[in-house]
Parts: sequence; C-alpha cells; structure tokens
Amino acid sequence: MTTTTPLSPTDRTKLRREKERAAIDRAALAEVLLAGMFCHLGVVIDGAPLVLPTAYGVDLDEGADGTLYLHGSVAARSVVASPGQTICVTVTHADGLVLARSAFHHSVNYRSAVIFGLPRLVTDPDEKLHGLNRIVDHLVPGRSTAVRPPSRKELAKTSVLALDLTEASVKTRAGAANDDEEDLDLPYWTGVIPLRVVAEEPITNPDCTLAIPTHIRNRADQLSAAVVTG
Amino acid sequence: MTTTTPLSPTDRTKLRREKERAAIDRAALAEVLLAGMFCHLGVVIDGAPLVLPTAYGVDLDEGADGTLYLHGSVAARSVVASPGQTICVTVTHADGLVLARSAFHHSVNYRSAVIFGLPRLVTDPDEKLHGLNRIVDHLVPGRSTAVRPPSRKELAKTSVLALDLTEASVKTRAGAANDDEEDLDLPYWTGVIPLRVVAEEPITNPDCTLAIPTHIRNRADQLSAAVVTG
Repeated sequence: MTTTTPLSPTDRTKLRREKERAAIDRAALAEVLLAGMFCHLGVVIDGAPLVLPTAYGVDLDEGADGTLYLHGSVAARSVVASPGQTICVTVTHADGLVLARSAFHHSVNYRSAVIFGLPRLVTDPDEKLHGLNRIVDHLVPGRSTAVRPPSRKELAKTSVLALDLTEASVKTRAGAANDDEEDLDLPYWTGVIPLRVVAEEPITNPDCTLAIPTHIRNRADQLSAAVVTG
Repeated sequence: MTTTTPLSPTDRTKLRREKERAAIDRAALAEVLLAGMFCHLGVVIDGAPLVLPTAYGVDLDEGADGTLYLHGSVAARSVVASPGQTICVTVTHADGLVLARSAFHHSVNYRSAVIFGLPRLVTDPDEKLHGLNRIVDHLVPGRSTAVRPPSRKELAKTSVLALDLTEASVKTRAGAANDDEEDLDLPYWTGVIPLRVVAEEPITNPDCTLAIPTHIRNRADQLSAAVVTG
C-alpha cells in the first residue's frame, strides 16, 4: 500500500495549464514510479541543464513521503554535481499517439511524474546497499538476492543518491482525441495508436548454462502482459 | 541519407567514462533521433533544472548539421524559458535489462543522444508550419497531409523552437552482460531481457466512422515489427 497524503504543490510543481491532467495524490505518484523502469535526471552544470537517462529505485513506505534512489559512478558528472543542488527527476510513460482531425489537437497519451529536490549523498554502508538493492529490484523484482552482492571496492566506486518524494507533480492524459466541434465532420480519420513497452524472450548469456530462473521469467511475462491503456 | 560529418565534441559532450560506448558520427545521431518518438527537454528555471517529456521533429538534410524542432503552448514554462538559454534535449531508447552475475555489473542496453544548444524561437510563419509538420510527421509519417492544418489563431497559440544539431553526443550499449573473470562460475543466471516499444491495434475515435487509413496502419505495423536489439 502506498500513502495517500496529498502532494503539496510548490510554485514549480503546480500545473499551470491543462489542470484537468493533474493527479494530486501520492497514490498517483507511486503508480507512475512503480510502473517505470528508467528516469531522466536533470542537473545544472556551469549554468546549463544536463539531462541523462538512468535507472532508479524507490521506497514507498506507508505513512512516509517515500524516497527515490539513484546511483552512478563516483566519476559521473551528473552524480558529482547533484549533492547540494536541486535536481529534477522525470519518469514518463508514453501510452499512445493521439491523432486528431486537426494538427493542433494532436496529442500524446502519457503518465509522467516530475520530482524536485536536494538529493542526499548516501554514505551509510547499509543504506547504500539498500538503495542499490532497491534499484536492482525495481528493474527485476527479486534480483538483488539472486546475484553476488557488491564488494566493498565496488561500493566505493558507486555513488548513491537519495531524494525525498516531497515535491512532485503527476500529469496524465488518456483516452480519445478531442477535436473542436466545427471539425467533427472533416474527412480525416481520428483515433489513438496505443503504445507500450514490452519484453522479448530473455536471452541467456553465451557463457551461462543455467536455465532462466523464475524471477526473470516473471518479470519478462509481467512486462509483456497486454495492458492497453490507449 | 544523413550526413556523416563527425560530431565535434565540446567539453560537455565529450564522454568521460565508458568511451567505448560513444558513437562519434552524425549517422549515429540521426539513427537515434529518427527511431525515437519523444525526448526529454531540460531547461533551467530560477537556477533549478526542469525536465519535461515532449514530442520533437527533425530536419536531417544532406550536408547540413540538421535541425531539431520542439513546440509547446506559448504559456508553457519550458518553452517560454528556452530562447536565450542553453537547453538540453535527450532522446533515449531502452533496449534491454542487462542482468549480470554480480549486482555491480548490472546494466542497461540503450541508445541515447544528448543535444545542447541555444534554441531559436521560430517566428517566420512558413518555417513555423514546417516545424510543426516535421513534429507531426515524426510521430506518424504522412500525417501532416491528412489533417486540417493549423489556423492562424492556432499558430499564434503555439511556440516552435529550432535547435541546431551541432553539439551532441551519442552513447549506446548493446549485447550480453559482462562479468568479472572471477565471477564466471557463480551459480547465478546471467543474460538480457530485451525491451522494445510496440504499437497496439489503432483505436478509432467513437465519433469517427472512417476506416483506418494506410499511413496509420503503416506506422502501427512499423512500430510493432519485431526488432530485437537485446
């Protein structure tokens, strides 16, 4: 269960336009984060934005705001620059191409979360391992217990950032195309091409003779399950 | 055909780590951009990064660096803030989850392009329409000629930004998981779960009685064609 404390909009998370697309509770945020696999991390370096794709993990404990974990090489610019500055983490699901009769009303069905915050560099070894496990298990549930855990040397090469899920906005669009009244009789097809991310059959490494384990099979099946959101 | 002028790395597009993942020519950049549907736009607002998903279009003319087009409501913060400041546009394809025997060597197969530049607000009406058509046709080739074009009023509500494709980096990872020599005999399955974006059957709007046209059918088929990249 995720918490349902309302998200408190700040000036930068308040949705100014298309307010009907705003989801205002933590359950919506949790849903977007749990369904996603990757985020785009935005940091400012020398005054310019840098946006990089990366994996993430989450803790969404009942009664708390929750935490998002990011990781990277200690040498990565995005990670090095992050502590002490506000970062932006965006998770997006593209659910469909919305094709209206008018070019103007073309749109995209999507679910997205935008999170701002001052990340904390995780230094406690236990929390660092916990954060890394959350990231691995976010990609494939159960994976963190089916691998060799990181060594002390590997942990030293890796930075883990924790971001409180306190300042966030969620925005979604779903459903059919919406044209202006006066365009409804135009001779142009209108509708939605639904999109989704699927997994293909897992590919065992050439140097591995083991059978595909249940946690891998489950994840591939779950990602491929047909859920048409339009 | 796309140009093959080498990308000139600047300090911020030079890849510092995992240099073997860097693609250095314009053909690689064009491939990532043409295969993508959405980008993440990073801007700096009040000193903090803002990362938003958005559609894009491209002109990749032979012999020129090429242009990326973005659009948005004239009221959108990201668009309003963009002219006069450096923006970052990132296009990412997540191609697979790379599951190693060690937690440390877990990775992601991906193709990504990161583009920096000072965007130009397009004011010429012809180029504005051209940019919007490039965006619509990027999502569904041929769509811009099968819709009602934007009216003058609609054009006035829309901002179009043009970004020269001069400063960019491309990074990719593909293939199997790579473990350390001493981990090769560990009893953990290792391999890749390939991922891809597919289109479902197009959904005609309830208020539309027309058959699904060829350009829509082609796009849905093309997006669903099995291309396992691992």
